[in-house]
Amino acid sequence: MKKLINQVDNIVSEMLDGMTAAFPQYVKRLEGFEVLVRASGPSSKVALVSGGGSGHEPSHGGFVGKGMLDGAVAGEVFTSPTPDQVFEAVKAVNGGKGVLLVIKNYTGDVMNFEMAADMARDENIEVEQVIVADDVAVENSTWTTGRRGIAGTVFVHKIAGAAAEAGLNLADVKRVAEKVIANVRSMGMAVNPCTVPAAGKKSFELADDEVEIGIGIHGEPGTHREKISSVNDIADKLLAKILAEGIYAAGDEVAVMVNGMGGTPLMELCVANKHVKDVLDGKGIKIAKTLVGNYMTSLDMEGFSITLLKLDDELKKFLAAPADTPAFVQF
Amino acid sequence: MKKLINQVDNIVSEMLDGMTAAFPQYVKRLEGFEVLVRASGPSSKVALVSGGGSGHEPSHGGFVGKGMLDGAVAGEVFTSPTPDQVFEAVKAVNGGKGVLLVIKNYTGDVMNFEMAADMARDENIEVEQVIVADDVAVENSTWTTGRRGIAGTVFVHKIAGAAAEAGLNLADVKRVAEKVIANVRSMGMAVNPCTVPAAGKKSFELADDEVEIGIGIHGEPGTHREKISSVNDIADKLLAKILAEGIYAAGDEVAVMVNGMGGTPLMELCVANKHVKDVLDGKGIKIAKTLVGNYMTSLDMEGFSITLLKLDDELKKFLAAPADTPAFVQF
Repeated sequence: MKKLINQVDNIVSEMLDGMTAAFPQYVKRLEGFEVLVRASGPSSKVALVSGGGSGHEPSHGGFVGKGMLDGAVAGEVFTSPTPDQVFEAVKAVNGGKGVLLVIKNYTGDVMNFEMAADMARDENIEVEQVIVADDVAVENSTWTTGRRGIAGTVFVHKIAGAAAEAGLNLADVKRVAEKVIANVRSMGMAVNPCTVPAAGKKSFELADDEVEIGIGIHGEPGTHREKISSVNDIADKLLAKILAEGIYAAGDEVAVMVNGMGGTPLMELCVANKHVKDVLDGKGIKIAKTLVGNYMTSLDMEGFSITLLKLDDELKKFLAAPADTPAFVQF
Repeated sequence: MKKLINQVDNIVSEMLDGMTAAFPQYVKRLEGFEVLVRASGPSSKVALVSGGGSGHEPSHGGFVGKGMLDGAVAGEVFTSPTPDQVFEAVKAVNGGKGVLLVIKNYTGDVMNFEMAADMARDENIEVEQVIVADDVAVENSTWTTGRRGIAGTVFVHKIAGAAAEAGLNLADVKRVAEKVIANVRSMGMAVNPCTVPAAGKKSFELADDEVEIGIGIHGEPGTHREKISSVNDIADKLLAKILAEGIYAAGDEVAVMVNGMGGTPLMELCVANKHVKDVLDGKGIKIAKTLVGNYMTSLDMEGFSITLLKLDDELKKFLAAPADTPAFVQF
């Protein structure tokens, strides 16, 4: 294993310090915890906390800042953060208007965030939660009951974050987040798998001419392997499964994310995006906003996912609202 | 070779279309050319044009927009754009106040951009040029006489772009760009080499426990190979060579860039940045601004470079000015 690290045990802590060192205007670390919160401290609005295992950078610490998250909890690589870490984040960001937890649907995350919510309620902090399960690849997986939460989570951060910033109350921020969740779907693939530092070897093996379709973001194998074809052909397959959900129709407006898995050149993501646009144009689906880049990664995995989010006027307004965070400072 | 592409011959064109499709609010493509210009058209200020071979995304098309470049010319992968392409860019962005060419020091780029400058002067367009040569790894290289231009170029785009936006005349924008060039130094390394699509194989071979120090951004081998150690140790070596330039001293203020080569997880770049900060703190060098991410890449190469830029009040002001481009929308 060749990685740019020091000790395997220190990666997450050093990563958080390195992010804080780069972006002190946005984030600070909660002393003694693997938690990033806004440098500006809590404010009098609904607060958003997300997080999960590390290895998905810039998720989630990179989205802490005005218009998005208030706190992000970083577990060990691909491992849920413990309830006490989440609880500390909730306490730190609570400004009196309540806290919304944005949880990706993994059994460990759901359990630990829910325990933290209970701990916070015991201290009279109002806490609600939403669970993102946007991955259409599989109905259940290694680490989930139900669908996995992947890149679509970033749209939840953005839109619910803007709703909170606009002064909506906790119930309404939750309602907006759930509307995003109902309308967002994703699917991913890998050209090359990732290597988890503590394991020291690739999470699965692919032949020199094979790709894995329907991968998750934790090195889980996908739905099947196939010979590599063109990126257009691969994008067609991912889009077909997303479009089969029946959510996106001619005349609809959508936001698109072509998300890199961490080791994918931006050049290739742009090539993929050209085809995604061509396909959606051909179906009469209007693209209101596109993101192309590394948003929800899987360490050094090479591959990409496509996310579609159907927009209504409310979601469109909050999507377009300003955001100012390390990983993106406007939208 | 496993890449997310269609035909090797179409990569650059599809990449440019994909970038334009994602960011129509920022960039448009010059019909029939491999050139991106601001979607808003030319304006009455000094215009900046950069570019070079493709494969360095987001450089350079991702930096076209308010406060940075006016046009970016994309050659084939790792190949200089032809003079006629550069000439078209110059004509398209010229708003009557002249055009500054920002050239990375590679023999082909310098020759072709200079020919384009001559063609433009023949049409009475005022053109000046600056050549970035920030790489301290080697004094001459495969494709250069003198030092190579690498990630430090992004600081030239940012700061000279802000100077142009502020209304400085061509001579002054050039002076500011040259001040950046005089004060910026970089050095990079690779954990894994890149694969140029047209070649179909890795540009050099590294053993499973080897890294290459002093690499360029075109798959050129570096100065030497060594057994992989810790990222702190590697960063120490890169920093030592940069600091040996004698530009950066206790009490100085600098901007830092920890730049990913395209295939490097953000997690690892953040870990590297923690150490860079620790080292500079220890030397009493103050960090005014840090960038951590993929700015000047080399396809799917895994590795990173460190860039330091010494700031004075003028550079600091232009560095802090707003920018709004696909690859970063603020600084």
